[in-house]
Amino acid sequence: MQPEELSRPTLASIAVAAGVSLPTVSKVVNGKLDVAPATRARVQRLLEEHNYVPVVRRRVEDLLVDVVFTALDSPWAVEILRGVTDVGLEVVVSPLSRRPGRDWVQSLLAGGRRGAIVVTPRLTPADQQALGRARLPVVVIDPVDMPGQDVPSVGATNWAGGLAATEHLVSLGHRRIAVVGGPEDYLCSRARIGGYRAALERAGLHVDASLVRHGDFRLDGGYDRARELLRLPDPPTAIFGGSDEQAFGIIEAARVSGLAVPDDLSVVGFDDLPMARWSSPPLTTVRQPLADMGRMAGRMLHRLIHGDALDTNRVELATHLVLRASTGAPRS
Amino acid sequence: MQPEELSRPTLASIAVAAGVSLPTVSKVVNGKLDVAPATRARVQRLLEEHNYVPVVRRRVEDLLVDVVFTALDSPWAVEILRGVTDVGLEVVVSPLSRRPGRDWVQSLLAGGRRGAIVVTPRLTPADQQALGRARLPVVVIDPVDMPGQDVPSVGATNWAGGLAATEHLVSLGHRRIAVVGGPEDYLCSRARIGGYRAALERAGLHVDASLVRHGDFRLDGGYDRARELLRLPDPPTAIFGGSDEQAFGIIEAARVSGLAVPDDLSVVGFDDLPMARWSSPPLTTVRQPLADMGRMAGRMLHRLIHGDALDTNRVELATHLVLRASTGAPRS
Repeated sequence: MQPEELSRPTLASIAVAAGVSLPTVSKVVNGKLDVAPATRARVQRLLEEHNYVPVVRRRVEDLLVDVVFTALDSPWAVEILRGVTDVGLEVVVSPLSRRPGRDWVQSLLAGGRRGAIVVTPRLTPADQQALGRARLPVVVIDPVDMPGQDVPSVGATNWAGGLAATEHLVSLGHRRIAVVGGPEDYLCSRARIGGYRAALERAGLHVDASLVRHGDFRLDGGYDRARELLRLPDPPTAIFGGSDEQAFGIIEAARVSGLAVPDDLSVVGFDDLPMARWSSPPLTTVRQPLADMGRMAGRMLHRLIHGDALDTNRVELATHLVLRASTGAPRS
Repeated sequence: MQPEELSRPTLASIAVAAGVSLPTVSKVVNGKLDVAPATRARVQRLLEEHNYVPVVRRRVEDLLVDVVFTALDSPWAVEILRGVTDVGLEVVVSPLSRRPGRDWVQSLLAGGRRGAIVVTPRLTPADQQALGRARLPVVVIDPVDMPGQDVPSVGATNWAGGLAATEHLVSLGHRRIAVVGGPEDYLCSRARIGGYRAALERAGLHVDASLVRHGDFRLDGGYDRARELLRLPDPPTAIFGGSDEQAFGIIEAARVSGLAVPDDLSVVGFDDLPMARWSSPPLTTVRQPLADMGRMAGRMLHRLIHGDALDTNRVELATHLVLRASTGAPRS
């Protein structure tokens, strides 16, 4: 693929080669019928031989949108992308460093973008203001926080997920159940812990403050908090990990403590990332429908681009418990 | 963000509001100096108040390229994207269903794309032909197979990686070392197994054909082959897993067989996906520099778009062994 090979044949060069006029070649290309069969055949053969590819102007119906990830290293990213690319939008993945703001909006408009989907673990108030003023349709996918009402957003039912995870552990017979949430100020973490509390209260179990801990939603947070919990005088027999990544850290903390999962410790995650199937043992977890969330955000953006109003500015998609091998009855 | 809020203020409406001529507003927007300070201030205030965003034509210098994944569900995808977005290309992520072909090339040209990066576990001969004829710069990132010489491509040093993984196990004292490759006809798998054989031969160890197995590079392939290997009369004490995902399956096979990793079985992966850190125990593996491969492919595409020749059509980036907790000395 050297530079000289990149020069494309033109209709004019095909016309010269075929010994016909330019309009005749054009008619053949455009499928018009008023060309003699022999001429048409000759022109078509030459078009094929020269591998003629029509140069078309940018299609106006192309819906080029940006998907902005504030953390493309998150395994969420690829799940959400799968959803967004499903709904007929052409998705430009933006550099990680850009944040919503005036320059960002101007660069989107200059780049011919019709809208944007912002995937972020958190929006600052300044970000939200910038999005509100954007004059460009924007939808936020926010599995973690809840943006203001003026920004269309898609999330998941975090409270119901925390409830389901904890009720599952209660139903297995666990009574000492701990939770490792994310950062305390993340709304999604509060909601998940709220679901955990509700499940315990519903079962008539005491909520022991020493069993409620906060990590960073990453591996180390799960590992460190689990090490602390497992050193308690009366350690838990089950931990709701708050996120899959934290749950993986909890499983590793159990291993280095000489405990088997699930025989000595049951662990539940939250997210159901593709790699939840890959852990050893495979992780019981609460599924956030990330691809569906991407698809939903894409559909909302579609409506906004076409000037249609949304039914609602905030959609939360249902979570559900996925049973695998990291949970079982406590040792009696 | 209702439709009526999406109407943008124009220079004309700003001019009316400011009580000045359209050219005067235009001068202020474009930073020209021949406008009275008071007028400039009034116009600028109105531009701010109305949140005027200039509508700019598509910048010609924008390098919009497609990145086509034949399997966006692969955890490779996001790593490679991180690299490609680093080098100043604007990346459109293509729907999974598209494959290289005449329609694909036409749609890229129609969409104003300047080139494409194809990330694929395999290219069919028809795909390769289509790419060769594309008249559009294309670079293939192919951690698995090796495309023809006429297609610029980026890969990794698979043979050297297989050698390093196996020499590590030999150096720990293992003598019964198995390998689970990918599908037999994948060149990358042959190269990794070739490295495994070379390491054994170099150490004066016999290559036992019963310890060389083939999976599908996915979790189940690793799990199933490891279950077979662990049931042998003289089972291996270490398995080189061929890919991280297979290695995770091997770790799970050890767990359900009642074997501890690494005390009873050492396991090495290949890829160093982000989740290799997340397994329990954390996975010793051969790092493929996926983000670097994305970056390299982006740079090659950059050169081709600008009509510069490439130094070479095939680049292989170095792999290296990453030591974690899934390998140790065999029980004596």
